[in-house]
Amino acid sequence: MLDHQELIAIPDSKRPQDSEIFMTELVLPNDTNMLGNLMGGRMLHWMDISGALAASKHAQKFVATVNINTVDFRHPVRMGEMVELHARLIKVGTTSMDVKVTVISENLKTASKIKTNEAYLTYVALDDDQRPTPVPRLILDDTPEKSKNE
Amino acid sequence: MLDHQELIAIPDSKRPQDSEIFMTELVLPNDTNMLGNLMGGRMLHWMDISGALAASKHAQKFVATVNINTVDFRHPVRMGEMVELHARLIKVGTTSMDVKVTVISENLKTASKIKTNEAYLTYVALDDDQRPTPVPRLILDDTPEKSKNE
Amino acid sequence: MLDHQELIAIPDSKRPQDSEIFMTELVLPNDTNMLGNLMGGRMLHWMDISGALAASKHAQKFVATVNINTVDFRHPVRMGEMVELHARLIKVGTTSMDVKVTVISENLKTASKIKTNEAYLTYVALDDDQRPTPVPRLILDDTPEKSKNE
Amino acid sequence: MLDHQELIAIPDSKRPQDSEIFMTELVLPNDTNMLGNLMGGRMLHWMDISGALAASKHAQKFVATVNINTVDFRHPVRMGEMVELHARLIKVGTTSMDVKVTVISENLKTASKIKTNEAYLTYVALDDDQRPTPVPRLILDDTPEKSKNE
Amino acid sequence: MLDHQELIAIPDSKRPQDSEIFMTELVLPNDTNMLGNLMGGRMLHWMDISGALAASKHAQKFVATVNINTVDFRHPVRMGEMVELHARLIKVGTTSMDVKVTVISENLKTASKIKTNEAYLTYVALDDDQRPTPVPRLILDDTPEKSKNE
Amino acid sequence: MLDHQELIAIPDSKRPQDSEIFMTELVLPNDTNMLGNLMGGRMLHWMDISGALAASKHAQKFVATVNINTVDFRHPVRMGEMVELHARLIKVGTTSMDVKVTVISENLKTASKIKTNEAYLTYVALDDDQRPTPVPRLILDDTPEKSKNE
Repeated sequence: MLDHQELIAIPDSKRPQDSEIFMTELVLPNDTNMLGNLMGGRMLHWMDISGALAASKHAQKFVATVNINTVDFRHPVRMGEMVELHARLIKVGTTSMDVKVTVISENLKTASKIKTNEAYLTYVALDDDQRPTPVPRLILDDTPEKSKNE
Repeated sequence: MLDHQELIAIPDSKRPQDSEIFMTELVLPNDTNMLGNLMGGRMLHWMDISGALAASKHAQKFVATVNINTVDFRHPVRMGEMVELHARLIKVGTTSMDVKVTVISENLKTASKIKTNEAYLTYVALDDDQRPTPVPRLILDDTPEKSKNE
Repeated sequence: MLDHQELIAIPDSKRPQDSEIFMTELVLPNDTNMLGNLMGGRMLHWMDISGALAASKHAQKFVATVNINTVDFRHPVRMGEMVELHARLIKVGTTSMDVKVTVISENLKTASKIKTNEAYLTYVALDDDQRPTPVPRLILDDTPEKSKNE
Repeated sequence: MLDHQELIAIPDSKRPQDSEIFMTELVLPNDTNMLGNLMGGRMLHWMDISGALAASKHAQKFVATVNINTVDFRHPVRMGEMVELHARLIKVGTTSMDVKVTVISENLKTASKIKTNEAYLTYVALDDDQRPTPVPRLILDDTPEKSKNE
Repeated sequence: MLDHQELIAIPDSKRPQDSEIFMTELVLPNDTNMLGNLMGGRMLHWMDISGALAASKHAQKFVATVNINTVDFRHPVRMGEMVELHARLIKVGTTSMDVKVTVISENLKTASKIKTNEAYLTYVALDDDQRPTPVPRLILDDTPEKSKNE
Repeated sequence: MLDHQELIAIPDSKRPQDSEIFMTELVLPNDTNMLGNLMGGRMLHWMDISGALAASKHAQKFVATVNINTVDFRHPVRMGEMVELHARLIKVGTTSMDVKVTVISENLKTASKIKTNEAYLTYVALDDDQRPTPVPRLILDDTPEKSKNE
């Protein structure tokens, strides 16, 4: 898959908005515990996928998760609710990328939204031999971040 | 779940952008056939979920799929690619809602994007006894639709 | 997988009954929405798989979905019900195949059956390089189609 | 679900063909081990579902699996192959039902079919309080069983 | 995967405790039937995986399921309960391995445990060409088996 | 489910070994990224389930995840490898429980094991109205922890 890529020109630098990811999930029965609440681990799985897609889009490489920082689960998310994830790069090193993932859950009937989680994840870009490989620089604006969900 | 809602004030009318949905999926092995291409039915499943979420967000009710219009599969989507779905209401009746779903696939390594599918789906809003129930009017601007993906 | 096939003799022509598919699915919790009704997209996914299996059996090749025609969802299908899909070729071109898929849902307790969906899907046969490749002709009888479910 | 059934008239007796089940499955990546062969447990899972559907259709009740007899796995089934299951009642007691499940796998490219498994499973019909409940008698013909797959 | 293994020294013989497997599963909605009881086939799937892992760990090879002996389902397992599987080799031939799998279900609220199933499965070790290949001998102690679950 | 429990006598205190969990997972295709490595989020999902089961077993209540501490992913885990998770309570408050989860991955062919992850998760016990509820005290021995995996 995804081969014959020798000639791809990857830009030297990119902005956070060039790789940000908006993911939407519907909470189904198998995602919840016996109380009908979304299981924490399922949420972490979605957060990691959104972050990995953002990092992969920035680097134009496959990536591996290096670290996930402390995550609090402040509010229960219920079966049938909608979960919106927003992943955006905030810092890059030579081969690593820090991504902030913000999660909003929404009750579709009441239209009430609540910020349920926030996490910082670090990814490393890998070449086809699975060795760390350089990534484009990140161009940070002076203007404060303004996401779709704020 | 989602009960005790007698007092929810649902607006008389909403704009398409109030309920539009951006969904992102990563094409995993079980989504593909023996050639490594995304199966059409999996794509249709994602399209229906994005459309149902948009309709449900507009109506603030549970919804049922009434109809899906002809869908062409113009380009194969490969394992490991990213699929972005955008669902947006284009017309509403008394209890029914027409949603346009547009699908863009992206090769994360080459950053090449292609519009792979487009569909029109109709949903009906249901009350708790599963009978059709009225939905807010749709306020259409004069300005042409301008989605994130265009 | 499925290699070493250089010597396979594929017949010049086949009858629809040589490739027809009967698929049975049980509607489980993750297949349904918050009202306990089968989600439309799950049904479309099953319809595409049954059609693809019929086309693949006729062509003795891998196939790709080219098009699915308008599908109406006339009756809700409930969690715990059984869904029977019947896929049968109705026309073939040089490399393409049209398949009619009929869906019957059955309440196992009342034994009541109802025809819930019907769709026409088009597939194309692909060779190992993913290029369209010819398929056997379809021998249509004079006698009207008579499926197991009628 | 499936309630309001007080008035259902269940026949005193039924024939095996009134409840036989034809199920078709496509072997996907997650169904296989590292050698690309279908895992035995996945096959057993499909066999149990087909048997349970046949028993449930005969009894018009929910059923529970009581026993599965010895099963041999004679031939490997490969990823991408099609598996056809046929379940048919062969004997009933007061509240229990014996079902024979036969499995045929088919390589879609070569059209070669092979009988890969056969099992005898016993189910018991349950009422809404989960207690064993009587089932219709089974009318066995004099003529030998003649399934679609033979 | 799992290649570059030419130099692996596999011991001539191993004890059962060197390869025993403890697996724990939580019974989720999609694992159960309409009565909220674990489906028999799901249990068989878990039993086969635990047995295959034990056999694979003993042989240090991929394995295929050859046979599963009669399994009784004596007690219903409920959604939300925890299932503990214990797999342990009891006999080996030249290329085959017999594994005993014992299943305990536990109601997490009452802490009541019950032995729900027991099965004997046979596996064969396969080399990279999928041909049967010899396995280490099994060193059986004089002392009676004493598992974690007893 | 799991009701009629008014009379359950829950002990005042328990030892860590009374609730420790050993979970085993096989890394399947859908658990891995395009490089054949286990996705970080899938691992976090498994870690949360093992921790939740340990906490639930200690409290004899349903639990919710409150927090997961920083997790490093030090070593890639490959498709086809076996993952062993060990969850053990290390501290309890009035209604909360701290669980240490340790993960070992094993290459079944080479029998090489590696400690791949370690995490600290906090759970809260919930009563049937989803309010925090007291849990048994934790009896910590003087002797150092000695798990199966060490």
